[in-house]
Amino acid sequence: MKAVTIKEAGGPEVLEWTEVDDPSPGPGEVLVDVVAGALNRADIMQRMGLYPVPEGTSPYPGLEVSGRIGAIGQGVTGWQVGDEVCALLTGGGYAQRVAVPAGQLFTVPQGIGLTEAAGLPEAVATVWSNIVMTAGLKEGETFLVHGGAGGVGTMAIQIAKALGARVVTTVGGPEKADRARELGADVTVDYRTRDFAEHGPYDVILDVVGGQYLERNIRALATDGRLVVIGLQDGLEGNLNLADLVFKRLSVHGTTLRTRPAAQKAAIVAEAQAAVWPMIESGAVRLIIDRTLPMSEAAEAHRLMDTGRHVGKILLVND
Amino acid sequence: MKAVTIKEAGGPEVLEWTEVDDPSPGPGEVLVDVVAGALNRADIMQRMGLYPVPEGTSPYPGLEVSGRIGAIGQGVTGWQVGDEVCALLTGGGYAQRVAVPAGQLFTVPQGIGLTEAAGLPEAVATVWSNIVMTAGLKEGETFLVHGGAGGVGTMAIQIAKALGARVVTTVGGPEKADRARELGADVTVDYRTRDFAEHGPYDVILDVVGGQYLERNIRALATDGRLVVIGLQDGLEGNLNLADLVFKRLSVHGTTLRTRPAAQKAAIVAEAQAAVWPMIESGAVRLIIDRTLPMSEAAEAHRLMDTGRHVGKILLVND
Repeated sequence: MKAVTIKEAGGPEVLEWTEVDDPSPGPGEVLVDVVAGALNRADIMQRMGLYPVPEGTSPYPGLEVSGRIGAIGQGVTGWQVGDEVCALLTGGGYAQRVAVPAGQLFTVPQGIGLTEAAGLPEAVATVWSNIVMTAGLKEGETFLVHGGAGGVGTMAIQIAKALGARVVTTVGGPEKADRARELGADVTVDYRTRDFAEHGPYDVILDVVGGQYLERNIRALATDGRLVVIGLQDGLEGNLNLADLVFKRLSVHGTTLRTRPAAQKAAIVAEAQAAVWPMIESGAVRLIIDRTLPMSEAAEAHRLMDTGRHVGKILLVND
Repeated sequence: MKAVTIKEAGGPEVLEWTEVDDPSPGPGEVLVDVVAGALNRADIMQRMGLYPVPEGTSPYPGLEVSGRIGAIGQGVTGWQVGDEVCALLTGGGYAQRVAVPAGQLFTVPQGIGLTEAAGLPEAVATVWSNIVMTAGLKEGETFLVHGGAGGVGTMAIQIAKALGARVVTTVGGPEKADRARELGADVTVDYRTRDFAEHGPYDVILDVVGGQYLERNIRALATDGRLVVIGLQDGLEGNLNLADLVFKRLSVHGTTLRTRPAAQKAAIVAEAQAAVWPMIESGAVRLIIDRTLPMSEAAEAHRLMDTGRHVGKILLVND
């Protein structure tokens, strides 16, 4: 089969669409014939050599795909060859085929095309696991998501609204603000000119920035507030005000989805599918696709993501 | 009635046993005729002027008492005048009488004297709410508590052992180490000479030190580990390694019991009584009393606590 390989750590030009060995499904896994994959920021980090691939994982980038089941490994029940699925991966999605634990398979929601479904698993699993399973966001609470125009951001705005939260998001520029409001954000804050703390206090904050925002995030949290850090785009460490933490009874959580053990991923996938698929099928939550490129043009897709001008998911399709 | 008043912020000598107005129970409250009260570190902070008394709270120190119900406010059911109780307070326990929301009353466990029961509410509610309700400590996990000789520490060691955890505690000196081991600690670490990280990694850490320990606590946590900060004895802020937080999927929680709304306190009291009273009645968890002094000698009791030489609770009894 063909896959996108990373020649060496570097810019988008290090991605090459080349012939590699086929994967085979181990016990508990299925083989998916990939129709489409989707980009995530972790792919960029991996390309740059900043995200060590977890042990036992495919060396090719790509954390989510859609496709059809092509083969079934030992001990897998409930799935058949030919089933249309989308899947959360630990790697290897920029390829024609990929092996994945059966617990990480989703069905394709009614009303979503098989290609588009490639853009669901990471965003849905990331948002649901963090804002609900970790932070316990509830109806009537105020929720802030940083970066409301990205794949996670667009999904977080919609799921939080569907849960009945008041939603505030930071965005870069008026175009992204418009898109975020279309998706249901009650307030957008241009982080280049305004302070997001003005529209708090927040019960839950989902953050991709890291160290640079830590002090402000803590200050902006309400009593009993929860901060979940899932990205470190600006700063690997920060100053934590423990007096605020204690007297406001706050919590700060860090998570990554990729390195979770398969059992945790399976629990997240099951809960996310049960809760979010109905929101998608009713139209309450829409999947936002920025654009679709051929898998062989993964380098171009990365260039696009590097600019930060996209809104929603960037997909890569096989011919 | 008489109560211990704080003449002005300062040392133990500012505490005075003087005549004050009687409290009266509001709706949902009962009046407790106090048999005994117990000291907590927050009382020291309050005496020094470092812990602002929450609004609507008695100005006298004292966060827990035992005694008999002397009067019942409007709307209280399930309790009768004369019932023996112990109670979690927001203040006012160093007195002959105190009004307390009925949701903050515990029964007196079988086998515990009414005087001694004064030492239970704060430690039990603090330990249970933090290590179980917040941090989710489970059988087979490794638990570290800083300051294993104090009121919270001695209770935390025993409850964590009763839950089936491996228990490590930091202590100051060999005598306290012996006491901690008697209570069930698997490992004691003298913080003056050794690094507690040596005996990790820890699934749950209960910390009273704060800023000074933050970096080491984070480093010592296992994957999916939880740090709960309930005291700030050394440092109101610290550097938080967010890369560790994210890649180890950690959480850092801050809590205080005293400022929680009554509904949260009632939920904690109900759960703690249901879970911990059987441990006390079976002898799995013992209440450790350092010594008992007359309420009128509160200043002497504070001097004792200031030295840090006590092990377990210091009680104050009414004549």
